[in-house]
Amino acid sequence: METRETIFGRRSIRKYKNQTLEAEKLALILKAAMSAPTARNMQGWRFITVQTQEGKQKIMNAHPYSMMLQTAPCAVIVCADTQESTPFFQQDCAAAIQNMLLAAKDLGLGSVWLGVYPNKERADGIAKEFSLPENIVPVGIVVLGYGDEEKGKEDRFDPAKVHAESW
Amino acid sequence: METRETIFGRRSIRKYKNQTLEAEKLALILKAAMSAPTARNMQGWRFITVQTQEGKQKIMNAHPYSMMLQTAPCAVIVCADTQESTPFFQQDCAAAIQNMLLAAKDLGLGSVWLGVYPNKERADGIAKEFSLPENIVPVGIVVLGYGDEEKGKEDRFDPAKVHAESW
Repeated sequence: METRETIFGRRSIRKYKNQTLEAEKLALILKAAMSAPTARNMQGWRFITVQTQEGKQKIMNAHPYSMMLQTAPCAVIVCADTQESTPFFQQDCAAAIQNMLLAAKDLGLGSVWLGVYPNKERADGIAKEFSLPENIVPVGIVVLGYGDEEKGKEDRFDPAKVHAESW
Repeated sequence: METRETIFGRRSIRKYKNQTLEAEKLALILKAAMSAPTARNMQGWRFITVQTQEGKQKIMNAHPYSMMLQTAPCAVIVCADTQESTPFFQQDCAAAIQNMLLAAKDLGLGSVWLGVYPNKERADGIAKEFSLPENIVPVGIVVLGYGDEEKGKEDRFDPAKVHAESW
């Protein structure tokens, strides 16, 4: 798909078909994640792929807005290894996540980004459910699968949010 | 350009030709920025476009790694309005920035992301140089222009960073 079509057409999909995600599509999405830039090129992101019912239930236990995992086949928990990251680790993970959302769109998949860190309750819950080491911070979760809702483009461009040269 | 080519081919460009950036290309990049998702769809990002020598000098005064602005024609300071954002504002801005980098690549432009917040010295410096209100936090800067260096693809995929089902 053309880059612009992907960027402008991506929407958050919250309804999914109960349909398996192909391994090669997930691999390509993870490769897209790791193509994002990171501060000082430290590449401190880490990924936990979750595709079992048990694993999806652990996410649903810890995250209040993850109920689409009752049908969606896959979630990827995007973490930062704080021992191998800068203080920009949230932004590093977010750039990787945005690449994942776009790669999913390009592959004909739906996706939605669930915020975790810095919400302490969600981050602690995910860390506990997945027994994460102290230095691994779950920053966000990307839900992936075949969408069961259609959403058209939405133009969010607002010229009032652009300032030329000064505030 | 095909989405995958854009995602996998994007690199940080730090050498620029002294060549003006067309207004319609900058507009498309800003539209791409505002196509990114934001937590609770609050769209709290704000953008300051800087194209004058005076404005570029203000950035160079405040940011130690911005000297490519001696030739690069344009920088966009990506800010968060903390009164209209959630605690996920860093990630909201980072997703917008990643879209900008990809849109630039798609347009044949080079780009590089300069980290600002949460580095206090850089954030305070940019806020002072541009007289930002208290509620406007400069999160990052995107430098844009015609690259004066060639960089090939770099495959950063590392399977050791992917964990299946548990850590």
